[in-house]
Amino acid sequence: MSRVFRFTLRPGMLAEIIAVGSELLTPYRLDTNSLYLTAELNKIGIRVIHKSVVGDSRDDIRATFRHALDRSELIVSCGGLGPTDDDRTRETVAELLGRELRRDDEVLRGIQERFRRFARTMPEINERQAMVPAGAIVLANPRGTAPGLWMEGGGHIVILLPGPPSELKGIYESEVRARLTRQGIAERLYSRDLRVTGLPESEVEQRVRPIYALYPETETTILATPTGIQLHPRTWSRDPAAAEKMLDEIVSRMALALGEHLYSTQGESLEDIVARALTENRATIAVAESCTGGMLAERLTNVPGSSSYFLGGVVCYSNELKSSLVGVPADIIDSKGAVSSETALALADGIRKRTGATLGIGITGIAGPGGGTPEKPVGLVHIGIADERGSRERASRFPGDRERIRFQATQQALDTVRRYFLFPPHGRA
Amino acid sequence: MSRVFRFTLRPGMLAEIIAVGSELLTPYRLDTNSLYLTAELNKIGIRVIHKSVVGDSRDDIRATFRHALDRSELIVSCGGLGPTDDDRTRETVAELLGRELRRDDEVLRGIQERFRRFARTMPEINERQAMVPAGAIVLANPRGTAPGLWMEGGGHIVILLPGPPSELKGIYESEVRARLTRQGIAERLYSRDLRVTGLPESEVEQRVRPIYALYPETETTILATPTGIQLHPRTWSRDPAAAEKMLDEIVSRMALALGEHLYSTQGESLEDIVARALTENRATIAVAESCTGGMLAERLTNVPGSSSYFLGGVVCYSNELKSSLVGVPADIIDSKGAVSSETALALADGIRKRTGATLGIGITGIAGPGGGTPEKPVGLVHIGIADERGSRERASRFPGDRERIRFQATQQALDTVRRYFLFPPHGRA
Repeated sequence: MSRVFRFTLRPGMLAEIIAVGSELLTPYRLDTNSLYLTAELNKIGIRVIHKSVVGDSRDDIRATFRHALDRSELIVSCGGLGPTDDDRTRETVAELLGRELRRDDEVLRGIQERFRRFARTMPEINERQAMVPAGAIVLANPRGTAPGLWMEGGGHIVILLPGPPSELKGIYESEVRARLTRQGIAERLYSRDLRVTGLPESEVEQRVRPIYALYPETETTILATPTGIQLHPRTWSRDPAAAEKMLDEIVSRMALALGEHLYSTQGESLEDIVARALTENRATIAVAESCTGGMLAERLTNVPGSSSYFLGGVVCYSNELKSSLVGVPADIIDSKGAVSSETALALADGIRKRTGATLGIGITGIAGPGGGTPEKPVGLVHIGIADERGSRERASRFPGDRERIRFQATQQALDTVRRYFLFPPHGRA
Repeated sequence: MSRVFRFTLRPGMLAEIIAVGSELLTPYRLDTNSLYLTAELNKIGIRVIHKSVVGDSRDDIRATFRHALDRSELIVSCGGLGPTDDDRTRETVAELLGRELRRDDEVLRGIQERFRRFARTMPEINERQAMVPAGAIVLANPRGTAPGLWMEGGGHIVILLPGPPSELKGIYESEVRARLTRQGIAERLYSRDLRVTGLPESEVEQRVRPIYALYPETETTILATPTGIQLHPRTWSRDPAAAEKMLDEIVSRMALALGEHLYSTQGESLEDIVARALTENRATIAVAESCTGGMLAERLTNVPGSSSYFLGGVVCYSNELKSSLVGVPADIIDSKGAVSSETALALADGIRKRTGATLGIGITGIAGPGGGTPEKPVGLVHIGIADERGSRERASRFPGDRERIRFQATQQALDTVRRYFLFPPHGRA
């Protein structure tokens, strides 16, 4: 679930994005170009108000562009510029806008040249990609054969881009961004990216609602993601200094309201924050995981340079390995069970001792779907943390399926490390 | 990149999906509900011909539904059924269809009951969620407060569903699927999901192109995903037996063309295939990972029931841990280096011996971005596999960034296990 809190907004130019391609109407593919385009357009003050996905049908393409022209000043399409009969964006839009298609010999030479460079002869069908609607500006495509097209008229800008993301981005960066910026859009979007953990969405919302209500010219998106809650305060402004100052103020107030639950004001991941805390404190870490099966080690080592603080880890599914590799006393497992506070503590302390790390983390739990009991249900996870002076443990019960339980357990383990440095258990050294 | 190869197609019922919510027009969120809905609708013979994303604006919602009614018999929307002023789907669609909204006391009691169950009082704003357009069928939502709504008329079916994926899926499964199936759709979609590893997309395409050209009534999507190439041959048919027979034929021909690179004809993951091979062979496995940092263990244990074959693993970043936890002789690391064939073999054999597993896997490499040298560049990964009779090793160089290199290394390690059982190194026992 996510919510956008919107107050009065002064819109800049309004835009919409049309993704063309029957493969985007199968269960296997999403249009992701629109995320890139939205981020880029927002940066230069253009709001995206509608997105469509349409198949390779002339009628649908025509109707979708027609409706878009009713709503938006700027229309950006991606896809349907290829050489085959299925690629119909160019012809359909030219027809809709009443512009004749003519072969552009320079474009054609560029396409032939590209084929020559790869030691191939241009198939005849690629000639279609050299057809240019009258009055259109050709946007060179350094990474593919289909050039982009820019058409203006009747208060509209229509930009046709190819579908492959690398080609689309290449053309946007080299040809589109500067041209759009020259349209003299004074207003642009300024934003922040706050990350919160350990609070439910409703609680986050309750805490920050009084704040964004104070700033009627901002909109704040609250996103509940698998990695926690994200807050994106955004404002459209003509005045960069004023916008940044207002966002800084909002962030300060939100930081107060969210307390230690706020772990980043710059969109960093919990792994990044933990990496920084370990590095700044010249600390090292080792982990012993049961139910999370290596996911905590994987997340810790996904940060470049992690070898400076991550010593290693053990994934011990079987009780034998908990004892032989991490040194958990067999009588603890026998008397308290493999999923218990005591085992989590012994895993944390055992891996710390075996590796010589500053901190040891132990995780044991029941990820499901099988293996739950009334006393120890699926989702129950014990997380222990140990340093040379002692150890602590916390039990949680996470909802969801196996993957979600495992992920939440690693998230909580990372947060345990973050909090260890935020609130040192033995005071600052 | 992906391509759909389409020939003549006979359409069943035509549908479109409208996702409502301003957060879906930010750079942070994609509508993913439409993938689930498309898969489900395709299964019962309904083709999705258009998708839209629209913000929380009455005008845009109204126009988008109006255009959809022009095109499609079935319209499914997700989102905009919440309790706040920003949630406008219900009111706007009721108005567009000329249906009065009335409070449904039974729905209201359900919502109040839900709040009571969580020991809370229903806020007054939630009363809006009990408003039902005249003649609409209420679709109970066991996982949230907003019920779905089903309206029929004028040759159309309009279904409004809430945006949270778990609620949408819950309502679809319990209330929508059966109702839609009863609409008596004769044609439905039949499909297969083939998974290929170890071949580039262009090579896969070249091998299978002659095959789908033989079946003009199918369409085949080729998708290059991070987990390998997927092939989806699909056909619409009124005759289940004929469709299944044709798909079986296509799959047989493709299997011949792709050889041992085809690892599933039923959309299974490589983890699933490895899990089955280990289980069927009553074999166990343990892993010692360096550069993949736990990702291989994480993937192996992401399969429910993996505790029956996965014994455990060690993530050994430091040379000391390679020796102390896995028993890699220090002189091998000293003379050959931590990233070497010899170390990979020693990791594989060491973890096998320490855990008593049938198979041991050892991975060592350079995931980057730092740490590369001309002799041992970023992306170089050695993967060893050992059983009680011996060990083998293979070096690869993977392209891409840290995450991609790590993922490809685990993919190749899983494929190494698959091939171990496919082509037993010592012959069948």
